[in-house]
Amino acid sequence: MNEKVERIQAILDKHNVDGWIIFCHHSHDIHQKYLHEKWISSATLTLIPKTGKPSVITSRMEEMLVDEKTYDIKAYKQGNEFTELVSKLFNDISDNSTIALNFVEEKEVFTKLNYDILTSGAFKALTSQNKNLNYISANEIIYDVRAVKTKKEIENHKISAKLAEELMEDVVEPLIKPGMMEKELAAIIEFECNKRGGVAFEPIVASGPNAAIPHHKAGIGKIKENQVLLIDYGVAYDMSNSDITHTYWIGSNPNEEVLRAYEAVHEAKEAAYTKIKAGIPSDIVELAVRDKFEEFGYDHEKLYIHSTGHPIGIETHDIGVGIRKSYPDRPAQNLLENSVITVEPGLYFTGEFGIRLEDDCIVIKEGVIRLSNTPKDIVCL
Amino acid sequence: MNEKVERIQAILDKHNVDGWIIFCHHSHDIHQKYLHEKWISSATLTLIPKTGKPSVITSRMEEMLVDEKTYDIKAYKQGNEFTELVSKLFNDISDNSTIALNFVEEKEVFTKLNYDILTSGAFKALTSQNKNLNYISANEIIYDVRAVKTKKEIENHKISAKLAEELMEDVVEPLIKPGMMEKELAAIIEFECNKRGGVAFEPIVASGPNAAIPHHKAGIGKIKENQVLLIDYGVAYDMSNSDITHTYWIGSNPNEEVLRAYEAVHEAKEAAYTKIKAGIPSDIVELAVRDKFEEFGYDHEKLYIHSTGHPIGIETHDIGVGIRKSYPDRPAQNLLENSVITVEPGLYFTGEFGIRLEDDCIVIKEGVIRLSNTPKDIVCL
Repeated sequence: MNEKVERIQAILDKHNVDGWIIFCHHSHDIHQKYLHEKWISSATLTLIPKTGKPSVITSRMEEMLVDEKTYDIKAYKQGNEFTELVSKLFNDISDNSTIALNFVEEKEVFTKLNYDILTSGAFKALTSQNKNLNYISANEIIYDVRAVKTKKEIENHKISAKLAEELMEDVVEPLIKPGMMEKELAAIIEFECNKRGGVAFEPIVASGPNAAIPHHKAGIGKIKENQVLLIDYGVAYDMSNSDITHTYWIGSNPNEEVLRAYEAVHEAKEAAYTKIKAGIPSDIVELAVRDKFEEFGYDHEKLYIHSTGHPIGIETHDIGVGIRKSYPDRPAQNLLENSVITVEPGLYFTGEFGIRLEDDCIVIKEGVIRLSNTPKDIVCL
Repeated sequence: MNEKVERIQAILDKHNVDGWIIFCHHSHDIHQKYLHEKWISSATLTLIPKTGKPSVITSRMEEMLVDEKTYDIKAYKQGNEFTELVSKLFNDISDNSTIALNFVEEKEVFTKLNYDILTSGAFKALTSQNKNLNYISANEIIYDVRAVKTKKEIENHKISAKLAEELMEDVVEPLIKPGMMEKELAAIIEFECNKRGGVAFEPIVASGPNAAIPHHKAGIGKIKENQVLLIDYGVAYDMSNSDITHTYWIGSNPNEEVLRAYEAVHEAKEAAYTKIKAGIPSDIVELAVRDKFEEFGYDHEKLYIHSTGHPIGIETHDIGVGIRKSYPDRPAQNLLENSVITVEPGLYFTGEFGIRLEDDCIVIKEGVIRLSNTPKDIVCL
């Protein structure tokens, strides 16, 4: 039996849910990839029942992508056959069963966007198939599947972070030269990530003032001497993503402002690590970072415009508990044992430069296992 | 004024729609990228009104990704500010306005999956903001924006196809060797695509029997001598994707079966080109391909398990008119002048091998402009 399916069936049992249905087209629901470990692009429905053999409805062109040992497969040739197969599947489910779908309730949508996956047309079409079923949001199931990592996933995260660190030091850093296009460097990084398993996300390569834009992508601008260069990238290894950010100096003498900001960001990261531990509310970590910036005299409200960390997994911004401030209507959650998160303080000086240092770690009972280590001192290239 | 916005405003005017709202998180709605020409990952709402300046609500961390000359930008720091800004935007729209959203009606969903983009939670949350507005599906607007290409898009498709052809012949083919992993070759192809603008989709590199799986991705299997090698890839150049498939022979003497299937597929492609022309129903082209397979004695119902072509654009499987059979409940549409489509017949022998040849072309009044030309005879590597 497939280990993933077994784990999900135990989670369904815990939540008293009779089945979980994942419906997607154009591979837009990551849980389809999670289950089948492949991209399936045609309209495809997967049903994991609480007990028994899961089933899949997919196109005849892609049925060979589904593991027939794990799944009962029904293949369609064209749209109306698909509709009929979907209808039959829903009507074969026992009355009054509780079926989880990847949607969230209207009032929660803006706080649970990560779980708002099923498209509106599909939601209406699926839930109208059989009115005798009870449809609930799959968010608790998704949380249990993804927030805490399995042993295998933790091992994969270790590999994924190590591969990312190595490719940067061994291969990419020696190639970086002033005059290179940001995009060219991004292409090299993607290539090296792909050779090691895959690209976690389109790398950010941000030179000089572009480094002050946290989500700048690589553009046609050139890497210049006497500027910072920020690179945010990750390897996707067996569906476990890493996510690391380096900030370099291009040239031999970084200016004082850059040196001081780098030191502050590095110390903020270290301050975070002294606090991270399973069970503590994440805002304690966030505050430690912001206190450190204050100590250095930086206005963190203005210069540090994102939160300190997010869970990583099959998605780079994964489901689970990250590191952020507490708000009256949205208190910070407690860090989870065996979750994998980023720690990524930064300082952004619009129009001038930005510094971000991002490492990955495993949250454990005793504190933290670091998976990557961006350097204490800025590296000059 | 931004050209894209002007064009969309003319389309809104034609359909008597007062505004088009694109809402997405994690960049899942391609129209957000179409408008902003960048990936924005935080929850972001874009409103294009029929007249006047468009507006955007996005996170403070990504507001610098939006062009402030074109858009009024409101930035939020956290979730509840976003909710308030969205609510204000909806309530500032005049009563009885017609607002298009990227959803489809329930009864049409399985035939219009390409337009079923808005998530179910977002759909409910947005349409409940202001009950005095009239919400309609944006499918006609999306169709008008994307099915027929602008002059600039057509020029980009020419470049994109040319770049894809050149990188394969000049760079990739000389590197292909037996013993190479499919994934390694895919990484090289992605690298070369990235250097030329971007990757249209994760390349298919399918060796031997894997070539019989139309949507096989590159795996850890090795490229072997005396087998076919199928490569399906494309360059994304300034948001115009190419999509090309080559089938090679690894070794010096392709066997008779492979030679004959390659010849049939090539001739089927040529038969398609003799028919393609703006205004004709696309099933005429599909039938020409299937007739050619029959002429060669192949059972196309069994061996040719997909249709002959799809529109390409900002998405590799774009919105518009492709080439396919006619069904009683779903007649074939007429080919559109100035649309860009693929022509990709194939023959798939499960467990043995597969042949597909795929080229891109522009549909014009007089017939077709070919953008790529896979070779008449199988290339031996």
